[in-house]
Amino acid sequence: MSKKMVEQITSRDEDFAQWYTDIVKKAELADYSSVRGCMIIRPYAYAMWENIQSYLDKRFKETGHQNVYMPLFIPESLLQKEKDHIEGFAPEVAWVTHGGNEELTEKLCVRPTSETLFCEHYAKIVQSYKDLPKLYNQWCSVVRWEKTTRPFLRTTEFLWQEGHTIHETKKEAQEETTRMLNVYSDLCEKVLAIPVLKGQKTDSEKFAGGEATYTIEALMHDGKALQAGTSHYLGQNFAKSFGMQYSDKEGKLQYVYQTSWGVTTRLLGAIIMVHGDDNGLVVPPRIAPTQVIIVPIAQHKEGVLDKANELKDRIAKFARVKLDDSDKMAGWKFSEYEMKGVPVRLEVGPKDIEKNQVVLVRRDSGEKIIVSMDNLEKDIPDLLDKIHDGMFEKAKNLIENNTNNAVNMEEFKDIMENKIGFVKAMWCGDAKCEEKIKEVTGASSRCIPFEQEHISDTCVCCGKKADKLVYWGKAY
Amino acid sequence: MSKKMVEQITSRDEDFAQWYTDIVKKAELADYSSVRGCMIIRPYAYAMWENIQSYLDKRFKETGHQNVYMPLFIPESLLQKEKDHIEGFAPEVAWVTHGGNEELTEKLCVRPTSETLFCEHYAKIVQSYKDLPKLYNQWCSVVRWEKTTRPFLRTTEFLWQEGHTIHETKKEAQEETTRMLNVYSDLCEKVLAIPVLKGQKTDSEKFAGGEATYTIEALMHDGKALQAGTSHYLGQNFAKSFGMQYSDKEGKLQYVYQTSWGVTTRLLGAIIMVHGDDNGLVVPPRIAPTQVIIVPIAQHKEGVLDKANELKDRIAKFARVKLDDSDKMAGWKFSEYEMKGVPVRLEVGPKDIEKNQVVLVRRDSGEKIIVSMDNLEKDIPDLLDKIHDGMFEKAKNLIENNTNNAVNMEEFKDIMENKIGFVKAMWCGDAKCEEKIKEVTGASSRCIPFEQEHISDTCVCCGKKADKLVYWGKAY
Repeated sequence: MSKKMVEQITSRDEDFAQWYTDIVKKAELADYSSVRGCMIIRPYAYAMWENIQSYLDKRFKETGHQNVYMPLFIPESLLQKEKDHIEGFAPEVAWVTHGGNEELTEKLCVRPTSETLFCEHYAKIVQSYKDLPKLYNQWCSVVRWEKTTRPFLRTTEFLWQEGHTIHETKKEAQEETTRMLNVYSDLCEKVLAIPVLKGQKTDSEKFAGGEATYTIEALMHDGKALQAGTSHYLGQNFAKSFGMQYSDKEGKLQYVYQTSWGVTTRLLGAIIMVHGDDNGLVVPPRIAPTQVIIVPIAQHKEGVLDKANELKDRIAKFARVKLDDSDKMAGWKFSEYEMKGVPVRLEVGPKDIEKNQVVLVRRDSGEKIIVSMDNLEKDIPDLLDKIHDGMFEKAKNLIENNTNNAVNMEEFKDIMENKIGFVKAMWCGDAKCEEKIKEVTGASSRCIPFEQEHISDTCVCCGKKADKLVYWGKAY
Repeated sequence: MSKKMVEQITSRDEDFAQWYTDIVKKAELADYSSVRGCMIIRPYAYAMWENIQSYLDKRFKETGHQNVYMPLFIPESLLQKEKDHIEGFAPEVAWVTHGGNEELTEKLCVRPTSETLFCEHYAKIVQSYKDLPKLYNQWCSVVRWEKTTRPFLRTTEFLWQEGHTIHETKKEAQEETTRMLNVYSDLCEKVLAIPVLKGQKTDSEKFAGGEATYTIEALMHDGKALQAGTSHYLGQNFAKSFGMQYSDKEGKLQYVYQTSWGVTTRLLGAIIMVHGDDNGLVVPPRIAPTQVIIVPIAQHKEGVLDKANELKDRIAKFARVKLDDSDKMAGWKFSEYEMKGVPVRLEVGPKDIEKNQVVLVRRDSGEKIIVSMDNLEKDIPDLLDKIHDGMFEKAKNLIENNTNNAVNMEEFKDIMENKIGFVKAMWCGDAKCEEKIKEVTGASSRCIPFEQEHISDTCVCCGKKADKLVYWGKAY
């Protein structure tokens, strides 16, 4: 690629963790604040999050959901209403004990998730089957007191959306859970160019208080898995704790069936770790804040900047474009926008103008393409799609090349020690085997995939009869 | 208007406060939560807020601003860095003292505003004049521990945007302050149909830590004023406390000049109190979640629902439209959408279909208009504009009819006791007079308007020489 005019970052293969931190800093994605574990999301990363929001919000609304806003605080007594829920979240919540100059009579937790608030509200506003379903979503930040943190991946506060819906029947609620998981996998695959595995979490990995958790799992470049989104079927657990009842067509009181689902700003971490390389970030074209960066060559020469501006105005009609006409050297600009991962660089200089052409350079592959100035309206959108497809294929290959079968613990250990990625292995369903696998290999169960295969008859751990295929991996 | 098929609300002129509460509840705008002073913003109100956001966000980006996200928490020591700032906010902040199961070594406040976080970040990322200006904005919620609260108007937690910018020169910063105040007045007048007064706050009413606060002030139907948005010129106060310096073209270290500005969900309260009437809410067309509600007449008759659906699909291309084909009685539907303040009701029945016409009913005036089905593409958008203009004029008249001059305290007291609205009076500039006026009449200074008049030579309070005209009023 281009000559390095800016400071190098750590090589990805040398030190993945440091490489990640370098990109976060050099691409100006996040900054640390003076509050331990809380991050500042800088404009460039926030703009990506806005593009993710805009895609999801549209999909949510098309599927009948409405946005609401619930309070930031939850009284201790409300959080405690669902037994498993409080057990799951209590160790990691932040507590407000004073308001103004007074001590509160009941301490308030800063929401780690808003199930309890939605339940309380739903119990109040729903009376009849005519009031159902309720399909609400909220965009907000939540707080979980984490011991070790990393920007985007694990922070004390993060941004997310949380959907909370209630339904008349189990079937409807289960369909909703699946529908939203599919919206998330569409987001990952069709927008972020990140292929995902879809499946169900084991009981020990499911949401605190729910009946079943469905997940999409992605694979990072270092071979670790990342849970990219979850959709929970909550059954009637919360309904019973919070008294969420309605009268059915016969006038009989019934409990509602419930779901919740969410994705977070950790998706920005996934983008870095799936697509990034030694030159920096590689942003998926469909959420790129800048899709095309115009770098004029020999811009002091007559006509170059005029042409660059003309091209910018033309391209702005169909893509997010910027022109860098600063007095920095062209090579320096190349490095800068490679670091920022802008999908397409458009170079235009005196010779190009003479030949009625521009040079397009792909960030993902480095490929240079010379195209006529006449067809940019078609060539640039086509190229953005091609880049998306290329990035997706590359990430898909990463999964394929790093997924291995294990039929006994020797094989399992060997894979986790010598290779990276997912391990496919049969499991008997016993949580003790799951625990032992984690202890011995460091891998946790990622999901029971919807697409099942039968790779052996027995549990990889205990050797007893097993009919569930599970994906395992080390996870962020 | 229509026969009342739903429960009546309190009359606006009888008990304004109860009328307000009734609308908030019956139009399903907000609900109380189990946390004192925190509200749930329900889908209908949240959709209005989203439309406000969408207008403002576009204007912010067109004027070069970028969105970011700062942490929810501020360490006590950081909040204390600017002396006036901490004095202004300390009495009303919520404190987090425990995280997970441990007591924190330094308590954290939940942000009441994020100046201190922006300052800390700016001090870190700005080195040279080339890094300026920085024009950041944040959409989030903030917390201020209020003693008495009312939905939208004053709540412990509310939603807002906060702009924070830094500049090389005083002139640039002052221009920014004015620019954003104008964006706010455009929002109020051109989108929300709420006329506003523009001016400067007196020193005792300005932002804690700033140099000058500019404001837009609106008048509610009960004659009380409401501060609808503020834009602060912060000078170099925070710059000096936080070390926000840059090297200028000569390499000399200089402090930046700073602004901040914000509007909040209290605008939703203003919409209720400026436009609402005894039939409920009246939503300004440009932010109405539903602009046109189609109510079929005799919908069981052949062809009526087909036609209604056909009209809905046509109108959806240029306006936010809904069809209510539920089996409720038409009169009940009329009342319901009047309560919700939908700007236009479209009635279509067998006779209308025969005559190729529809009936359009204006929510603001009750006026019925019969129009041909052929011209809806023009007639409906025109009518929505007309409704906007009508609502604006009505609100403008309210201000004009309720603004009175006072040249001495007798007149001032008399107005505040017998009339409502704004009092225009000259002021010497002494904070003591301002305080006395508040004590004696209950009115606070609302603003020193940009459009000055000279209505007398002397201060309305002390009788000394005065050259400043001030608007006064009782305020929310």
